[in-house]
Amino acid sequence: MGQKADIGLIGLAVMGENLVLNMESKGYTVAVFNRTVEKVDRFINGRGKGKNFIGTHSLVEVVDSLSRPRKVMMLVKAGQPVDGFIDQLIPLLEPGDIIIDGGNSHFPDTIRRTEYVESKGLLYIGTGVSGGEEGALKGPSMMPGGSPEAWPLVKEIFQSVAAKVEDGSPCCDWVGENGAGHFVKMVHNGIEYGDMQIINEAYHLMKTLLGMDAFEQHEVFKKWNRGVLDSYLIEITADILGFKDEDGSPIVEKILDTAGQKGTGKWTAVTALDLGIPLTLIGESVFSRCLSAQKDLREKAAKVLTGPTPAFKGDKEAFINDLEQAIYGAKIISYAQGYDLMREAAKEYGWHLNYGGIALMWRGGCIIRSRFLADIKKAYDKDPQLENLLFDPFFKDSVEAAQESWRRVCATALQNGIPVPALTSALTYFDGFRNAQLPANLLQAQRDYFGAHQYERIDKPRGEFFHTDWTGHGGNTASTTYEV
Amino acid sequence: MGQKADIGLIGLAVMGENLVLNMESKGYTVAVFNRTVEKVDRFINGRGKGKNFIGTHSLVEVVDSLSRPRKVMMLVKAGQPVDGFIDQLIPLLEPGDIIIDGGNSHFPDTIRRTEYVESKGLLYIGTGVSGGEEGALKGPSMMPGGSPEAWPLVKEIFQSVAAKVEDGSPCCDWVGENGAGHFVKMVHNGIEYGDMQIINEAYHLMKTLLGMDAFEQHEVFKKWNRGVLDSYLIEITADILGFKDEDGSPIVEKILDTAGQKGTGKWTAVTALDLGIPLTLIGESVFSRCLSAQKDLREKAAKVLTGPTPAFKGDKEAFINDLEQAIYGAKIISYAQGYDLMREAAKEYGWHLNYGGIALMWRGGCIIRSRFLADIKKAYDKDPQLENLLFDPFFKDSVEAAQESWRRVCATALQNGIPVPALTSALTYFDGFRNAQLPANLLQAQRDYFGAHQYERIDKPRGEFFHTDWTGHGGNTASTTYEV
Repeated sequence: MGQKADIGLIGLAVMGENLVLNMESKGYTVAVFNRTVEKVDRFINGRGKGKNFIGTHSLVEVVDSLSRPRKVMMLVKAGQPVDGFIDQLIPLLEPGDIIIDGGNSHFPDTIRRTEYVESKGLLYIGTGVSGGEEGALKGPSMMPGGSPEAWPLVKEIFQSVAAKVEDGSPCCDWVGENGAGHFVKMVHNGIEYGDMQIINEAYHLMKTLLGMDAFEQHEVFKKWNRGVLDSYLIEITADILGFKDEDGSPIVEKILDTAGQKGTGKWTAVTALDLGIPLTLIGESVFSRCLSAQKDLREKAAKVLTGPTPAFKGDKEAFINDLEQAIYGAKIISYAQGYDLMREAAKEYGWHLNYGGIALMWRGGCIIRSRFLADIKKAYDKDPQLENLLFDPFFKDSVEAAQESWRRVCATALQNGIPVPALTSALTYFDGFRNAQLPANLLQAQRDYFGAHQYERIDKPRGEFFHTDWTGHGGNTASTTYEV
Repeated sequence: MGQKADIGLIGLAVMGENLVLNMESKGYTVAVFNRTVEKVDRFINGRGKGKNFIGTHSLVEVVDSLSRPRKVMMLVKAGQPVDGFIDQLIPLLEPGDIIIDGGNSHFPDTIRRTEYVESKGLLYIGTGVSGGEEGALKGPSMMPGGSPEAWPLVKEIFQSVAAKVEDGSPCCDWVGENGAGHFVKMVHNGIEYGDMQIINEAYHLMKTLLGMDAFEQHEVFKKWNRGVLDSYLIEITADILGFKDEDGSPIVEKILDTAGQKGTGKWTAVTALDLGIPLTLIGESVFSRCLSAQKDLREKAAKVLTGPTPAFKGDKEAFINDLEQAIYGAKIISYAQGYDLMREAAKEYGWHLNYGGIALMWRGGCIIRSRFLADIKKAYDKDPQLENLLFDPFFKDSVEAAQESWRRVCATALQNGIPVPALTSALTYFDGFRNAQLPANLLQAQRDYFGAHQYERIDKPRGEFFHTDWTGHGGNTASTTYEV
């Protein structure tokens, strides 16, 4: 064998194929392997023909074909396959070599694997890769975390294949230790769920309340894509709404309304619950997908349960403008919640996250890319310690300016029986967040009443606990915590 | 030693003390043990004095003092302590003896422990016990699951100590195999979170929008407790709102608004996410507690972010009546969601749940006890296969009758900037549930656009999948599922 390869890749599904074509186009030689080895030959004689690829039929061949320190990247199904390849690779590699997982692994697995691989003298990277098949080919967003010593060794390859923003900055930078990269990718996906859900709700309102067909909405989304909502998801929504089926009617109306989910949105919501962070918009978005999947049940329910007949009174254009502001307000809340989750996770897992850098990584290449993320980057560039996105003057002004429209949209939807769970959930969160005094004082009283859970008082220092004998016949035991 | 004890209890915290006093009062002799053995002596010479208790200072003594088959119940902290006692008890017990966990264990642990204990030739029960310290003493709600052969052996003791409804039926019956009892207890606790949250939101609205003080609200809750909301939580809320601090002012207003959570509400929400069931009201309730705990952040936010100044226009009495209906409507949704979760779990874990029986167990003794649960029992008695609570004519009529008021309350709250996340989340769920056509068709198009995820069509059979080349330059690969 002649020239050594710069990196090896395991897993030639569409993401893997496109990513190695991207790498090769940037001047790297890539060794490729796939468990079903026919795929390797097909690729080498197909899309990879005449290019700097080394086709291999075994892991030994992959490893032998690599320059040192070796870099082996897996783009395989999350879960057992990743552990399986790690165990097969370890005996073939030498100290300082790097195993890279570019799949959709759950971050606790990446935390565990980093520790395991490092214990064998090797380095590990778990990297989020976002952008779908097209992103993989033309420049994805990449979010690498793992062994810090590995970063300088892959930085050049990663940043050269990654998407670039206007000024040429790559949408790829070091995220943090062990599972940080996959964690940030998970939050990205959760935010993606939320962004899609609020677009869906706007579409539903325009269709059901305003009686607009898909082609009319196509024009609205095209217009929105030139304003504050300018983003990939708004752009493709415009494309979709304008897309004709063979009979000339909008194809979107022929599609069944049952959404699947790959699980990363769910992970985000579960992680938020575990860390005690109110991630309500994404939570409602995940539940909305669950409800959409209960199609048979909903069809039965629609025959039994009645509600108001939607009837729009007012100015249609004005309502569409309100809708744009409602989406914008909800989107600000969703990102504020997502960043709140990342801050809490950084504390919990000891990561040193660069919040502006994360916004930059999401700025291009990935599904949630948008002009909006440039504003988030600006906010964190101005104040890297920003405690909450809503404290940034730009976002404070934006959300305040949006709220009147946003309230009108939600109130109108509720009165007309059109479900807007994410838009309203974000609004109730905003109202709770900006409220120094929530009704949880009553909740604490209730818990103390039936469970002697104790409470703190506003006229006493934090950390001092009180119990009231509400019924006059309670015991003298202060808490029901079971102790042995 | 003379007479043998009928049952042994490990863990003399307040719940344990009260439960054994309850058992003894029903004619049972109870052997008691506590890891800190001084507690045993204190109890025997205190609240247990002159009663049929056998104080023991070791697990060997507990076991020796029991009649056969032995029944040893633990009321200890969930987690490792339960596993620890199980391992200590196994070598002391004989085939057919029963280990009972009456603590707040998570149901997957109970599934695992049932299998483990049965593999040692013993029987296992994991039982939910609800009702706080007073319930334990006077009659709790008990939800036992585990080894079916164990049930006939403890049925008499359990049902005699449990709460009774008007006709004398005990609030305790066999729930199902392995973790079913603890699962149903977990859902109970989740529903408790939801019930408390919607009461909190009503309190917050009356206080902030209507300007009512706690004593005025005390009268409202007293009145509500004679209507459709008649329940323990409404009753204690009335008590709390009428309770005066030493200076004569309502004590509830002195309590800090930061709610703790013991984790069972979170477990319920996580389980719903795992099983794909839209449990939105409980989800929002858990997140509301999280937000309440972010007190410092909220105080900062309140200084920065502005919203509308609450201004109520209209008839106050009428709004209070609307509020009652809003709570009622949201409560119906919450229980429908909880039952939906139980149905899905029964499928997933192979349990044979008796849904009417569960309503009866919750009817008395526990925190969510209410007249409402008698209506749920009736619904499932009429149709044990009822697919969804909202399909029962009584609940269908009730929720439909409530909706106009409920919509007014939510719209008013959103317009006035007062957070009502659970009331609105339940309403948007209701509107989604009764909607045969949700906007997830657009969502499926989006997923197919950027990820080639494919979709089904309304004009084609289910299970047939389609992909559109939206941009005209996609590849011919139908999905991005990573395969090796």
